Parts: sequence; C-alpha cells; structure tokens
Amino acid sequence: MIPFETITEVIKNYETGLVDFAIVPVENSIEGSVHQTVDYLYLQADNIRAQAEIVQPIKQQLMATDSTKRIDKIFSHPQAIAQSLKYLQTHFPEAKIESTDSTAYAAQFVAGHPDKPFAAIAPVASSLEYDLTIIAHDIQEIDENYTRFWILGKTRPQIKLPVSDQKITLALTLTDNQPGALYKALKVFSDFGINLSKIESRPLKTFLGEYFFLVDAVYSGDYIYLINALEKLGITVKQLGKYKVYKM
Amino acid sequence: MIPFETITEVIKNYETGLVDFAIVPVENSIEGSVHQTVDYLYLQADNIRAQAEIVQPIKQQLMATDSTKRIDKIFSHPQAIAQSLKYLQTHFPEAKIESTDSTAYAAQFVAGHPDKPFAAIAPVASSLEYDLTIIAHDIQEIDENYTRFWILGKTRPQIKLPVSDQKITLALTLTDNQPGALYKALKVFSDFGINLSKIESRPLKTFLGEYFFLVDAVYSGDYIYLINALEKLGITVKQLGKYKVYKM
Repeated sequence: MIPFETITEVIKNYETGLVDFAIVPVENSIEGSVHQTVDYLYLQADNIRAQAEIVQPIKQQLMATDSTKRIDKIFSHPQAIAQSLKYLQTHFPEAKIESTDSTAYAAQFVAGHPDKPFAAIAPVASSLEYDLTIIAHDIQEIDENYTRFWILGKTRPQIKLPVSDQKITLALTLTDNQPGALYKALKVFSDFGINLSKIESRPLKTFLGEYFFLVDAVYSGDYIYLINALEKLGITVKQLGKYKVYKM
Repeated sequence: MIPFETITEVIKNYETGLVDFAIVPVENSIEGSVHQTVDYLYLQADNIRAQAEIVQPIKQQLMATDSTKRIDKIFSHPQAIAQSLKYLQTHFPEAKIESTDSTAYAAQFVAGHPDKPFAAIAPVASSLEYDLTIIAHDIQEIDENYTRFWILGKTRPQIKLPVSDQKITLALTLTDNQPGALYKALKVFSDFGINLSKIESRPLKTFLGEYFFLVDAVYSGDYIYLINALEKLGITVKQLGKYKVYKM
C-alpha cells in the first residue's frame, strides 16, 4: 500500500506503472461525484478501466487534543465538512470552519497545536494515529453515508467481500444539444432493457453548456451491441469499466 | 451590498429578509455545478426562485507580496485551484497547494505573511485590495472560463446587460429507477420540443443511488402544461426559476 497526497497523483502513479492497482473514490451518497476522479478518467487518462467497486460506509468523528477544551476553529476536507454540516450548524454555529486537503492532514494539524482551540473532523483511524480524543461520534448528516471506491487496474483483483451487483460505467459525448439528443441516447438503454442507476453531466471544460454524460447501469451481459447502437446515433462512447460491486 | 462568508449564509440571510436579493454561483464551465447552492435550493429552501442569471467571465491570477520571491506554497479556494491545475502542474510542480474557504481569504493570508514563500490564486480585485503583485496573469485552464450566477428574489431585478437567453430550471424526483424512468421524463421535454441545456443528477442524501435531477431548458413560453405532463407520470417537480440570462 502506497499513499499519495491527491487523487490525481494516485492515478498518475498507476499510469507510470509504479503500482499495479489504484484505489480512488468516485461517489459519496451525500456529496455526490468526486470530480477529480471522474474528470481525470474521462478527459485525461487513456483507457484506464475500473476492475471492481467497493462500497464503504463513512463515519465522521469530531476530535481534539482534549475533550474539555473550547473549540473556535474546526478543520477538515470539504467533503467531510459538507457531510457534517448539519451537526456543525447545530452544535458549533459560531466556530470557524477551515478546509484542508485531507481529513488526515486536519487531524495531524490539530494534534500539532494542542494549545489552540482547534478540532478536526476525521475518521477513527486518524484519532488513533494522532492521539486525539473523539469528542462527538458519527457526526455525518445521515447514517446512510457511503462512498464508492473504484479499483483501477489491468486485471481483476481478488476481493473477499460479498458481491451486491454487477455494473458498467460509460461516458457519452453527444454530437449536439438539439431537443431530444440525450433522450435518444437514453432510449437506446431503455430499448435494451438496461436499468440506469446514475446519469450525470460533467463539463467538457471547453465552453459553458458543453458536457459529457457519465452513465452507470446495473448490467452483467455483453454490451458491444449497446455501444454499437449508441455509436450509430453519432454518440462517442468511452468505456470506464465493467465491474462487480462489493459491499463492506 | 452585504458580503457573507459562505453561500449558505447568503441564502439564509435572504430567507430571513435581511436582504431583498441574493446573488449565488450555480455553475462554472470548468468545475461544474456549485453543489452548496443547488443542494440548498432543492433540499432545504422553500419556494425560492431565481429571477435572473448573470454569466460572468472568470480569470484567475497568481499573486504574491513580491514578484521575485521563491514560492513553495500556493493558497486558494478549491474551485480556483481546480481551474488553474494545469498551470500549477506545469510551472509549480513541487509547490504545496492548500485549500482556503475563499480566494479573497487566500490573498489576505498571503499578504499577512510577507516573509513566507507563499502565493495566492485570486481575482485582480484581491490583488488591489491586499496590495499583492500579480506574478502570472490569467492562469485558469481555458479562456472560456465562465460562472453562472443566480439572483434570487421575489421580483425581477433591473439589470442593464444584454439578454442572451431565457431559461427555466426544474428539479425532478422520479418515483423509481426502473429502466426508462428518466427516459420517460425526458420524452416529455422532447414531445414539447423543449431543448434541455443541462441535466444533472444530485444525491437526495438519503441512500447511495437515490437522486434528484436538475434540468435546465432554453424556454420562454408557459410551462404549466409541461409540469402537468411530468406530474401525470408520478414525477415530483420543483420549480427553481424562469429567468432571463444576461452576459457580462
């Protein structure tokens, strides 16, 4: 296991061959898509495939160097802050919230300033690593807080977890935005009886209003006919993966 | 004009009646939707309407207290960092990048530490306010970097800018995710000859895989028939606005 500081670095070190697999987050049930991952895979990476998906429950803890201290400032990653926003607004309406690059860095920073009125939002593992006391447990907005992780690789990894689904993820670029262009694309999926579990538009980063579409579908069959049918409509299709979904 | 620290506070102070209008970002051409805005308007706010949209060009500047200094650390808001990522990776591959709550705060922080090897990514206005020197101009990824802002209010504001479009934004919640559920919703738009300019799924923040759909359409007519047709399919429709689009 080799950690890197950003998602982009994780994928780049897989591309250069330093690692055999890369594990990256793709979507959280509260905050939505992880744009750094999906944008890089569609717009910059060449032919990287998801070989498996792991769905992991996420629990956020509020931690400080001492359980009785005053807290004026709370540090965490923007996704963790967003997931805990309701708790923070109720219990710490006056505290200043500051963004950090990761929840681990927030915990490390708070541990390094024991004399300051600081707290961090991070997982239990960080409280153990940086010797912080958890002052509020499971502060994420809803119990149903899960993150989807993709394992990128050239082969299927061995995973000892129960399989909940089999899915495909495709990225579609339409030729125009005439009325019904997306409708026609979705009609193809409907005609094949394929159940979309997600559709999202992401900017092509060219002009405001130009998008590609990320489509997830629960599907275990062969999908070459589906892709042929989409391409016949002038739709450019990039395959991001066909993979089993494992639940922790 | 009254500034607030977060988007949520801007909208909340409009809800309490402290201000007559609220101006909030909804989408950037590189980074996509501003989730804090669209999630609050759909999931938390009651009956707030966009009365106008302003499309503003966004240019990011790299600034420091002195144009000749070494730079080891660069501060900015995550959206501005994402918009400038290619420049940073090319020209400052070794620099540590740190997130801040706003570009203005990044500039203020850098100005307050003239002895440190710090720089900020922020707009020209911040370099003037905090007396910083711009060391690289217009570092955002593409020239076509625009942000859509909504003006929320009870009445139409007077805006002296050219009108480029007239649009509606609806949020749809489907009854299920059976094959073709979204397809059927889009068929209604297609049948009415209405051109979707955007569709995005956002998590309902209930379970992983449950979404609402934000739909933008270029449309200036009456849309009560459209909403009736959608509701007949069991789709819940929330109107977020019918508004003119102004370009700066």
